[in-house]
Amino acid sequence: MLDLWYSEYHADDVRFSIKVDEHILTEQTKFQRIDFFKSETFGTFFTLDGLMMVTQKDEFAYHDMICHPAFATNPNIKNVLIIGGGDGGTAREVARYSTVEKIDMVEIDERVVRLCQEHLPQTSCALEKDKRINLFFEDGLAFVNNAAAGYYDLILVDSTDPIGPGEGLFTNEFYKNCYRVLGPEGILVNQHESPYYKTYAKEMKRSHQKLKTTFPIARVYEFHIPTYPSGHWLFGFASKSLDPINNFKPEEWSKFNLKTKYYNTGLHKASFALPTYVKELLENE
Amino acid sequence: MLDLWYSEYHADDVRFSIKVDEHILTEQTKFQRIDFFKSETFGTFFTLDGLMMVTQKDEFAYHDMICHPAFATNPNIKNVLIIGGGDGGTAREVARYSTVEKIDMVEIDERVVRLCQEHLPQTSCALEKDKRINLFFEDGLAFVNNAAAGYYDLILVDSTDPIGPGEGLFTNEFYKNCYRVLGPEGILVNQHESPYYKTYAKEMKRSHQKLKTTFPIARVYEFHIPTYPSGHWLFGFASKSLDPINNFKPEEWSKFNLKTKYYNTGLHKASFALPTYVKELLENE
Repeated sequence: MLDLWYSEYHADDVRFSIKVDEHILTEQTKFQRIDFFKSETFGTFFTLDGLMMVTQKDEFAYHDMICHPAFATNPNIKNVLIIGGGDGGTAREVARYSTVEKIDMVEIDERVVRLCQEHLPQTSCALEKDKRINLFFEDGLAFVNNAAAGYYDLILVDSTDPIGPGEGLFTNEFYKNCYRVLGPEGILVNQHESPYYKTYAKEMKRSHQKLKTTFPIARVYEFHIPTYPSGHWLFGFASKSLDPINNFKPEEWSKFNLKTKYYNTGLHKASFALPTYVKELLENE
Repeated sequence: MLDLWYSEYHADDVRFSIKVDEHILTEQTKFQRIDFFKSETFGTFFTLDGLMMVTQKDEFAYHDMICHPAFATNPNIKNVLIIGGGDGGTAREVARYSTVEKIDMVEIDERVVRLCQEHLPQTSCALEKDKRINLFFEDGLAFVNNAAAGYYDLILVDSTDPIGPGEGLFTNEFYKNCYRVLGPEGILVNQHESPYYKTYAKEMKRSHQKLKTTFPIARVYEFHIPTYPSGHWLFGFASKSLDPINNFKPEEWSKFNLKTKYYNTGLHKASFALPTYVKELLENE
């Protein structure tokens, strides 16, 4: 019997491993190495440069939480920009809102999208069939540099970690341009790393500091996802005027009548309540 | 260089591993095998029958969350019963309340306590020096069978999983006796497993069903801990009359003036807000 394991090091001396039934493919693109695997407990999953991106079984937690809190804060979102998110899961969740008119998705590596369309239809399903989605295969940083001021209501930064192709998406220049292309009620949600292991906590702090200096409202919220380091992951919620706590609109969101597996209006505010050590990491410095 | 790894299987095909600097000791007692290790990222940690119990670096999350929510619901707790908790971390947190008069701690395996006193002073520190703590090295199930009705204000069940020596602590008989020995404002908090991986989710459901039929109030709350399966762990909060949400007393708790690393009054209610799939698992059946 084949005994093949995928492992990711969450620290130099901490390792998370999944037994692999099949190594479906490996492909080196201009940007990164892509690998697809099949496993029993997590279904199909893929990695970029060896780091876990998406598994079929727990992606619902990530994609619910990157998307729905913004819509429950501003239920009138019309124009959405997704940076990264090549697997399509974020676009799939945004596309569930019939009130959304346009979804521009900017993924630097077309091969991620194409391979997900072939091997991960669960996340990529909306990309082909939803006519509101426009795919751009280019650099996200350059895209926001060139976008019209005030055009978007929501930007979702569904990026890799701040090393490699995702690096530019964690810079002041990028955040400032996001601010510029957002309308007066604009919201930016970004992948915000994790508080526990040191290297991730460092990026979390850096990202938060930068967002705080760019946006008048900058909060951090959390969720659980078993395949990410420590299982404890964060998103940043930065905004020009709407506060995710004070402007939370549970009744209006409930009218969308969306069935979700992770997000619910009961945990919306709760997800912004962070453990003391995380608050201290974010506040100090 | 020694390349030694401790691994725990969170599912048959999912493994979490920590590089070990030193295997401090191994001891087989009448009840279980105890192993102590030293590691860089998690400090000293110990396992029972190979399963992770406590690490020096992340135990604060578990011990904060098993203890403080009950005291923020009833700040007048005087008599506390701890079942299990041989490492002493739970007793240490309870002992921080000067208003507590008595802490009975019932641990089946004296060797766990003695070895933690030797190798994990960070958690065991209060056991020797706090005169309110009474150690009983006996079976927790038998202890509550023989205890006087209505005597305790709080029972904390800090047990292993429901296999091996901890099994009796997940039975109807045990919960009914806990109910009997609790006073009219009595609270029971118990280790409630985890919602993600199937075998843990099954025990979570069973435990919740039993508590619901025994106590008028039975809620579940969550926290993050990197070294437990999926990083997402739960406690049950069962109570005769006080509700952890409606009877939450943040101002009174703040007067205790305790510095905590995980718990804070901002996340008290939030920890009871569960993801939809967890709520569904707990409600169905």
